[in-house]
Order: sequence, then structure tokens, then C-alpha cells
Amino acid sequence: MSAALDQIRIVLVEPAGPLNVGSVARVMKNMGLSRLVLVNPHCSPMHPEAQQMAVHAQDVLAAAEAVATLPEALTGCYRAIATTGRARDLATPLEPPRQALPWLLDTPSALIFGPEDRGLSNAELNYAHRCVGIPSNPAYPSLNLAQAVAVCCYELYQLAQAPVQPISTLSVPSVARTDAEPLASLDAMEQGLQHLQTLLLEVGYLHPHTVSSRMQKVRQIMLRSQLSTSELALLRGMVRQMNWALTQTSPPSSTPNHS
Amino acid sequence: MSAALDQIRIVLVEPAGPLNVGSVARVMKNMGLSRLVLVNPHCSPMHPEAQQMAVHAQDVLAAAEAVATLPEALTGCYRAIATTGRARDLATPLEPPRQALPWLLDTPSALIFGPEDRGLSNAELNYAHRCVGIPSNPAYPSLNLAQAVAVCCYELYQLAQAPVQPISTLSVPSVARTDAEPLASLDAMEQGLQHLQTLLLEVGYLHPHTVSSRMQKVRQIMLRSQLSTSELALLRGMVRQMNWALTQTSPPSSTPNHS
Repeated sequence: MSAALDQIRIVLVEPAGPLNVGSVARVMKNMGLSRLVLVNPHCSPMHPEAQQMAVHAQDVLAAAEAVATLPEALTGCYRAIATTGRARDLATPLEPPRQALPWLLDTPSALIFGPEDRGLSNAELNYAHRCVGIPSNPAYPSLNLAQAVAVCCYELYQLAQAPVQPISTLSVPSVARTDAEPLASLDAMEQGLQHLQTLLLEVGYLHPHTVSSRMQKVRQIMLRSQLSTSELALLRGMVRQMNWALTQTSPPSSTPNHS
Repeated sequence: MSAALDQIRIVLVEPAGPLNVGSVARVMKNMGLSRLVLVNPHCSPMHPEAQQMAVHAQDVLAAAEAVATLPEALTGCYRAIATTGRARDLATPLEPPRQALPWLLDTPSALIFGPEDRGLSNAELNYAHRCVGIPSNPAYPSLNLAQAVAVCCYELYQLAQAPVQPISTLSVPSVARTDAEPLASLDAMEQGLQHLQTLLLEVGYLHPHTVSSRMQKVRQIMLRSQLSTSELALLRGMVRQMNWALTQTSPPSSTPNHS
């Protein structure tokens, strides 16, 4: 998928739950990663529960390598980062994923996760250059294995995409149109506002001394919503239809069903 | 945990898998979130598999609310973001989590996830102001529900921890409110839309077969404009007055001055 991700392997040390292994495979594929290495796994990637959770990532499971030791899993790697939930007496500082993971890109490298029940031991952490801790609630910091992998793979995928997504995207309006709909022109909007004003005077909602302030408020609402031409036409259709209904000499035949 | 996260609810629409619901509860607690709302759930949060996956977050499951409809789940919210895997013809742009989610902090707000098999429908997406898409591999973009929740909760937790929130100021809409006006709640807006719909049916603008599509368009316009409570009251006043005018047995005494 992305050249920057091709050389990164996900290493699970002694995973025990096939549901987790299957979920890991799925999110790896979701995030453009394909190489899964299992160190002394306590379950088979071919277990039906693993297959079921992988859904369309059964190819990742089928290609998963099983090895006996962590050093074997790191064969050929130049950089390794270990994950841990505990900020223990580490020789290396515990870094957030976003800070440490860019270091793995474009290099034969490994991201290591510990067993579900105990996490990585100090001896295992020792095989890595750096340690990542996912920021979490001190009241319950322990993430599910597959969730921890998901968060890290998500960060890797975003980092690999980064050149294409410059910071300028941050300044895109938050509640903005992205469709290709042409925006209504300001003069077309003014005409619509005029018709609405006429209607509102007629029904007694507006009075001469409130026209200006109230219509300004309506204009602000319409401007903020960045109306397209078709949306403006929709709103004007409503005004037209209400005008028509009011010009009927008798009350509408249907019983009003408003309360 | 963090005041910035206290008011955010996670809404799952029609979740079917108890493993997923349990995993969602766990990662919510990991990330300092506690309020889970299930819309028409197809499984119970008390299902043994949900309890098992939640581990130390069974309190989140026990406190989960089940409601019948999405609007009910949004009662009291001022901001809603929906998640979707598909970049469809959306009126609102598909934004990455990091860009959109800061907008939910410090406000009664909702983050909405769709069912495992189909995701959120367009009608359901329509209830949200903004749409989030988790960046993923085009070859297999569909994330597991609990993984998608994990990624978004992780982002929320990190955003809440950031001492300053620079991104949130960047993602303020370009056509944004700058006043301190309190925003209208989503349920108040739905009530306003209901009254408008009644009126439009009465005057013959809407017909049973057009109600849904046209009212969705109106909802999009209103969501984009980020109505304040006073603006919503203004619009509802118009609807009320037009209703009143229509119930008068004679045409209005003032001469209509529209051309």
C-alpha cells in the first residue's frame, strides 16, 4: 500500500487469544500493514475465531510467521520499538506513539506487543531501541491487545500518509460544504430574503419597526449555512407555496395537525 | 477523569455483537469516557461476552442507556459527529478524527457509530453536524466497530490532555459563529423541524413521498448554520405565525405587497 509501511512488521509476543490475533490482522490490513510475526504463540492464526475476526484479512493470518524467540522475530530489522502499559524503571523513556513511531518508517523495523496478561517483560523490552506507551486513563490504563495494535497502526498509517496531508487541511472549515454544488449568489439570496420578508409582513410576524433587525438575523443564518443554488430554490419554493396557501380565500381544507 | 471528556457520549446505532460492545466499553474507560448510549441494540450489554470483553469496564456497560431512536440518543447534545467509512455524496466533508473531534470537547456532544454490517445510513448521518472518516487502506478500509471506537477515543483522550488546544481553534469553521450565543440543542432543533414539516404538509409544499428527502435537506442547512437558541426561537416564531395566519378564516386584511 504505502512504501513507507512495507518494511514494518508487527510482532506479537506469546499472544493467547485467537480473537485478538484475528483483530490484529484485520486492523493491520486496514492500515496498510501486512507482515505479522508471532513469537511462541499460544494460539494458531488458523483458529476459527482468528479467521472470523480477520474478515477480509485472512491473507495476513495465512502469511503470519511463527518463531520461537523475540530475537528471531527481529531478524533483519534495523529498528525496534516495544509497547508497554507500565512506566517502569526503563532505561529508555516512555514515549507517546506519535512521537516515536515515525522513526520506524522506510526502514526494516519492528513494533513489538506483549502477551495479553502480562505485557512485555523488562528482558523483552530490552530488545527494543525505544518504548512506546499509549496515553490512557490512570484509573484503567490497560488496553486490550488488539486495541493497542489498532492505535499504533492507525498512527503509522497517518504518518505514512503525512506528506499528502499538509497542515493546511486543518484550516478547512469545520462545518463546510465539500460537494461540488454551486453556491447561491448573494443577489439570488437577497431576492429570496425579500420574498420571505414580504410573506412575514403579510402574516404579521414582522412589523415595520422589526423588519430590519429580524431580517438581518435571518441573513446571518443563511450566510453561515453557505446555501447552494438548489437549497436556495428549495427554501424559495416553501415561501412561494405558503404565499399561495394564504391567498386562498377559504381556510385550507385539510385539518391542521399541529398541536 | 478529564472535565473536557465528561460531556461526550459514545452512541452505537444497532450494535449486534456483544464482543464489540464489551470492547467499546473497555476502550472508553481506558480513554476516560464513561457514557455509552445504544440505539435499538441487537444485543444486551449484560451478555456474558460483552462482560468478558469489558474486563474492568463493566461499570460502563451497567450504566449504558438503551434508546429506540437516534434522535433520542442525542437529546441534550449540542454537537454531534458521525463516523462513516464511505466517502459518499455527503453535504458535509469527511474529516479525519484529529481535525474534527476537538470540536466535541467541553460540550454536551455525541460521537456516533453505525452498525457492524452496514455503517450509518445517509438518513442517520444527517443527524450529525460533521462526519469523521478514519484514514485507512483503500484496499480494505472497513474497520471493526470496536477498533474504530478505539481510534476515536484515543484521539479524544489525547486532545483532552493537550494543555492548549491549538488544533481546535484551527478547525473552527470559516463561516463560524464568533459570538458567545449558546447553540440550540439537537432535540430542540428536531422539534422545530417537526413543526415546520407539519406546516409544509398543510400548505401542500410537502407530500408524503417527498417529506423525508426534503426535510433532510432542510436539516443539513440548519446544522451547517449552527443555530443559536435565539435563532431557533426566531425561526420557530415564523412557523407559528404562519400557522396562525393559515387558520384565520378570511384572507389577511392587509394587501399582500409581493409582486
